[in-house]
Amino acid sequence: MFDDVSDLKLLGKSKTEYPSKVSPDLLESFPNRFPNRDYWVTLISDEFTSLCPMTGQPDYGTIVIKYRPDKRCIESKSLKFYLFSYRQEPTFMETVVNRILDDLVNACSPKEMIVVGKFKPRGGVVIEVEAHYKK
Amino acid sequence: MFDDVSDLKLLGKSKTEYPSKVSPDLLESFPNRFPNRDYWVTLISDEFTSLCPMTGQPDYGTIVIKYRPDKRCIESKSLKFYLFSYRQEPTFMETVVNRILDDLVNACSPKEMIVVGKFKPRGGVVIEVEAHYKK
Amino acid sequence: MFDDVSDLKLLGKSKTEYPSKVSPDLLESFPNRFPNRDYWVTLISDEFTSLCPMTGQPDYGTIVIKYRPDKRCIESKSLKFYLFSYRQEPTFMETVVNRILDDLVNACSPKEMIVVGKFKPRGGVVIEVEAHYKK
Amino acid sequence: MFDDVSDLKLLGKSKTEYPSKVSPDLLESFPNRFPNRDYWVTLISDEFTSLCPMTGQPDYGTIVIKYRPDKRCIESKSLKFYLFSYRQEPTFMETVVNRILDDLVNACSPKEMIVVGKFKPRGGVVIEVEAHYKK
Amino acid sequence: MFDDVSDLKLLGKSKTEYPSKVSPDLLESFPNRFPNRDYWVTLISDEFTSLCPMTGQPDYGTIVIKYRPDKRCIESKSLKFYLFSYRQEPTFMETVVNRILDDLVNACSPKEMIVVGKFKPRGGVVIEVEAHYKK
Amino acid sequence: MFDDVSDLKLLGKSKTEYPSKVSPDLLESFPNRFPNRDYWVTLISDEFTSLCPMTGQPDYGTIVIKYRPDKRCIESKSLKFYLFSYRQEPTFMETVVNRILDDLVNACSPKEMIVVGKFKPRGGVVIEVEAHYKK
Amino acid sequence: MFDDVSDLKLLGKSKTEYPSKVSPDLLESFPNRFPNRDYWVTLISDEFTSLCPMTGQPDYGTIVIKYRPDKRCIESKSLKFYLFSYRQEPTFMETVVNRILDDLVNACSPKEMIVVGKFKPRGGVVIEVEAHYKK
Amino acid sequence: MFDDVSDLKLLGKSKTEYPSKVSPDLLESFPNRFPNRDYWVTLISDEFTSLCPMTGQPDYGTIVIKYRPDKRCIESKSLKFYLFSYRQEPTFMETVVNRILDDLVNACSPKEMIVVGKFKPRGGVVIEVEAHYKK
Amino acid sequence: MFDDVSDLKLLGKSKTEYPSKVSPDLLESFPNRFPNRDYWVTLISDEFTSLCPMTGQPDYGTIVIKYRPDKRCIESKSLKFYLFSYRQEPTFMETVVNRILDDLVNACSPKEMIVVGKFKPRGGVVIEVEAHYKK
Amino acid sequence: MFDDVSDLKLLGKSKTEYPSKVSPDLLESFPNRFPNRDYWVTLISDEFTSLCPMTGQPDYGTIVIKYRPDKRCIESKSLKFYLFSYRQEPTFMETVVNRILDDLVNACSPKEMIVVGKFKPRGGVVIEVEAHYKK
Ligand SMILES: [Ca+2]
Ligand SMILES: [Ca+2]
Ligand SMILES: [Ca+2]
Ligand SMILES: [Ca+2]
Ligand SMILES: [Ca+2]
Ligand SMILES: [Ca+2]
Ligand SMILES: [Ca+2]
Ligand SMILES: [Ca+2]
Ligand SMILES: [Ca+2]
Ligand SMILES: [Ca+2]
Ligand SMILES: [Ca+2]
Ligand SMILES: [Ca+2]
Ligand SMILES: [Ca+2]
Ligand SMILES: [Ca+2]
Ligand SMILES: [Ca+2]
Ligand SMILES: [Ca+2]
Repeated sequence: MFDDVSDLKLLGKSKTEYPSKVSPDLLESFPNRFPNRDYWVTLISDEFTSLCPMTGQPDYGTIVIKYRPDKRCIESKSLKFYLFSYRQEPTFMETVVNRILDDLVNACSPKEMIVVGKFKPRGGVVIEVEAHYKK
Repeated sequence: MFDDVSDLKLLGKSKTEYPSKVSPDLLESFPNRFPNRDYWVTLISDEFTSLCPMTGQPDYGTIVIKYRPDKRCIESKSLKFYLFSYRQEPTFMETVVNRILDDLVNACSPKEMIVVGKFKPRGGVVIEVEAHYKK
Repeated sequence: MFDDVSDLKLLGKSKTEYPSKVSPDLLESFPNRFPNRDYWVTLISDEFTSLCPMTGQPDYGTIVIKYRPDKRCIESKSLKFYLFSYRQEPTFMETVVNRILDDLVNACSPKEMIVVGKFKPRGGVVIEVEAHYKK
Repeated sequence: MFDDVSDLKLLGKSKTEYPSKVSPDLLESFPNRFPNRDYWVTLISDEFTSLCPMTGQPDYGTIVIKYRPDKRCIESKSLKFYLFSYRQEPTFMETVVNRILDDLVNACSPKEMIVVGKFKPRGGVVIEVEAHYKK
Repeated sequence: MFDDVSDLKLLGKSKTEYPSKVSPDLLESFPNRFPNRDYWVTLISDEFTSLCPMTGQPDYGTIVIKYRPDKRCIESKSLKFYLFSYRQEPTFMETVVNRILDDLVNACSPKEMIVVGKFKPRGGVVIEVEAHYKK
Repeated sequence: MFDDVSDLKLLGKSKTEYPSKVSPDLLESFPNRFPNRDYWVTLISDEFTSLCPMTGQPDYGTIVIKYRPDKRCIESKSLKFYLFSYRQEPTFMETVVNRILDDLVNACSPKEMIVVGKFKPRGGVVIEVEAHYKK
Repeated sequence: MFDDVSDLKLLGKSKTEYPSKVSPDLLESFPNRFPNRDYWVTLISDEFTSLCPMTGQPDYGTIVIKYRPDKRCIESKSLKFYLFSYRQEPTFMETVVNRILDDLVNACSPKEMIVVGKFKPRGGVVIEVEAHYKK
Repeated sequence: MFDDVSDLKLLGKSKTEYPSKVSPDLLESFPNRFPNRDYWVTLISDEFTSLCPMTGQPDYGTIVIKYRPDKRCIESKSLKFYLFSYRQEPTFMETVVNRILDDLVNACSPKEMIVVGKFKPRGGVVIEVEAHYKK
Repeated sequence: MFDDVSDLKLLGKSKTEYPSKVSPDLLESFPNRFPNRDYWVTLISDEFTSLCPMTGQPDYGTIVIKYRPDKRCIESKSLKFYLFSYRQEPTFMETVVNRILDDLVNACSPKEMIVVGKFKPRGGVVIEVEAHYKK
Repeated sequence: MFDDVSDLKLLGKSKTEYPSKVSPDLLESFPNRFPNRDYWVTLISDEFTSLCPMTGQPDYGTIVIKYRPDKRCIESKSLKFYLFSYRQEPTFMETVVNRILDDLVNACSPKEMIVVGKFKPRGGVVIEVEAHYKK
């Protein structure tokens, strides 16, 4: 290995096993402490990447998730791992956003959820996709 | 030719035939994998150029396309080529935006579509045009 | 004349006669090619200037015009000349915006029109005026 | 007159006589209270306008003046009136900036002075001019 | 006086008497030339200052006034003087905004008016207040 | 102590006792002088910090509070101290925002209140939470 | 007094006596703990206000102070009070900046100091002044 | 023609003949009125477009020209036409910038000149090129 | 504990022991793989917080560290923990920046290092401190 | 495959073989047409990603390359493929930037080259690395 990390004490023990395909099972949730109040949670990651199904080259984007929790909230660190699992998936942007919506609805069964993907330009063309779920 | 590209291996084989007039046939689509969900797709190109019908000089602008797909989605690379085909067309901005809307509705038969053109100032005057289609 | 322009070939022939008072007759229009579609056109000039009726000093501002065309569209270069004709007019901002709205409605008989003026601060105070017409 | 200002008490008495040509005599100065210290004063006006010598149409820009005062400082309100006096002058930008530098050096005899003009685009082309004087 | 202004010709005659307490009488109005049209006027000053009633220290903010004129419009220079009159008033932000609304409604009897105050942070806390009047 | 402050006259007497746990009792209010008018007050602090309940590490964020006062207004300096009291509290963002809403409603009994928390990214993921109360 | 603050416990005891003229004596300093290291300290206040010596109206600006401390550092809260003491002083901007430099050099005897004042536009003209001291 | 311009009076007479290849002869100059002063002129166009020599697709960019004039200045409208003449030229960015520098030096023989090209991303990669000439 | 984290699998095991005072021992380094090349590394944290030594209240800021490594580089996660250790330290900004510089020079013995602290305003006054070390 | 691309004509033929490890051989160059002129070329990609050698998680950043070409220029599309080849490489940022510099110097033998990497925050800490080569 090019970089030697053997004498670093603080960090070396928790190396993550990298998921090799899209993994909804990574998503975790915790109990919503205010289930009687109707409120919105927004989660934003600007580090999403997948592969173009036509050219094999990487695409990059920002994923915005907005939902009204019912009994459970999405745990944000597990969301990070779930989004990482798209890193080697060949897929169109329109499909990515709808799949994320389906997987998150399964994971926390919210009252309502919106997923938006804003992707970096390819050939000078930017794509944004926005999908909506309501219980 | 001023620049010699004969010894470049990676790229030289796929030179595009340049369309010489506005070409709706360049537009392609692919199947919408979530036809039962009502969602929005936005496509943005900030590299649009055509010619002024009065002075013959170039105009420049950004085209924003927002639609709810029905059975088909617009393929973004084919959209890039379609927009390129306006490069030598003499036309008013008001006409450009309405024509793009007509051609895209033909190409993917969406539930709903909005096209906006925002053009660079001429004589200190900026023009923006916004048109709407609903099935 | 301080600057000598006699040896410039490309430009010298089309010197514009400068209007000395507010001139609605400068406004021109062209046929709307999509009269059956309900769409919006926005025209923005950030080079508007007139004189303060109380101090005689110049005021500066941005004029935004937004309308739904009926049978005719406003030609943008003629709009530029019309706005230039306020250069020596002493007038309040509230009056400017309403006059521009009246003159443009006369010139193209739109379905609907909004005119907004945003003026640079005087004595630390910014003024914005917004007026609306509907057929 | 379109707007009636006869019942406004606070303002009506000090209407300025508008200069009809470039007027260096409008410039005034006041004594520099710290002539032994070497310091910089910067004056910025973003409301400059003159006429294009080729087309007769208005040009707009920002004028930045930076100088090290010697015995006198430029009074800022008189500078405003001096800059207004270009409003009907047909002139190139390159000439404007050098003339302003000459007139201000005459008015306050500084140790050093820089004048920069940044003008709004014409035909998509922006011009900036920067000239320098040192005693 | 530290700065000597005795040899400045252009300006010296109109020194303003500074109001020592909040002075609604400073507000002036002029006739609305388009009383039959329903339109909005917005006035913005980012130079408002008063004193904190608890610590005696200055507060700073931006005041935004938006109204639909009926028979009279607020004259903007008189508004500047009225806002200056808060300079030595000890008062909470919530009270300032509601008082300005009351005084301006008295001065021009508008169809509708909104006043917003946006104040600079104190102890890392920003305050904004928005009040509304309708005839 | 590393820094010696013993010879500073102006400040030394009012050292604040630091709250060691979340302290709703710190919140104070003052009488609303315009209880008959329906208006909005917004309070913003971009210096909120608490601890992550899973890793023990600090989280940072901005808290926005918007309410329509009834008989009492929140005093802004007491709000600052209340927000400081979360500095050593291990808690999820979803819980923080709902607790702040509950405590502020108790403190001033408003007609309506919205609390929004916007937190800095952790693992590239930003969280925003927005909760609403109406009397 | 318009606002009643008598029932607020947390804040009421430390009301500041407001200085009625420019007061260099308000400035305090503390010992520089690293006198052997050559380093820069920058202090910025965007809440400076004084009066125009010609019109009596308020001017507003930002003051930037940059210095290399020798034996003493400027205490920032005392600087705030010193800058407040210009609130009713009629003075030109060129004079303000040089006076602040003189007073701060007296207060902390730095190795080097730069003071910059950036003032809000008057008549569309912005003034910036920058002065320099070196031991 | 799709858009009918036959009834527009103000504009119709000056339609420009469009150059079909790179045309240095389009460049014009005018006499420098201050040849004894050493000053800088900057010209910026953000509407440059040419073709990629490898793919045939359009590239877009901003061209910045900065020079110290000697006996002649570049006329800005002629520069616009010269830059338009690259519209159908297949060329690398590195070549474009150096050619523009050669042609402008020929056209006005300046004391010194810098040309910078900043091009829009292709495949996520932005290119900027900067070349320098000194007499 | 208010939030229950007992059923979260992915994260629960690595809860950090929080340092209760400034802890230079937390800093770790790794071998510089290019010791023969002279290059710069910049590390930026915008989440620094400490306590004011005079009022006991929190201060917030951004720390920028720039250095030319010699044999060792600073490990960034250990830097995060070191900066966290100031969370309950009462200290002036001028002292913070110089201490961080001393501790980092000790930890990695660089050829050269600059530390800058930019702190949030207190009483409307911003402080920035910049210190420099050279071997 | 989740998305079916079999009926798309325009794009399907040129699917790129994805490099599975860091591949300097992907870099191509073309002849510099102006080898006698000393000029700078800058290439910027904001889509760089690699893996953290300690945690296995992705890092993201922007790579800026600036060089004075000698006989050859870097072809920008081949640079894109070279940068993609870091996608699965576990490496520190300090190492990445120095390796890119070595590989590019090998590929085009420039007179001078600078490589800068600006990486997204991890644990609130941003890293930037800048390395320099001169022939
Ligand atoms: Ca978390
Ligand atoms: Ca087709
Ligand atoms: Ca694609
Ligand atoms: Ca036109
Ligand atoms: Ca004079
Ligand atoms: Ca003045
Ligand atoms: Ca009155
Ligand atoms: Ca006025
Ligand atoms: Ca209480
Ligand atoms: Ca307060
Ligand atoms: Ca302090
Ligand atoms: Ca020629
Ligand atoms: Ca011109
Ligand atoms: Ca250690
Ligand atoms: Ca790391
Ligand atoms: Ca290319």
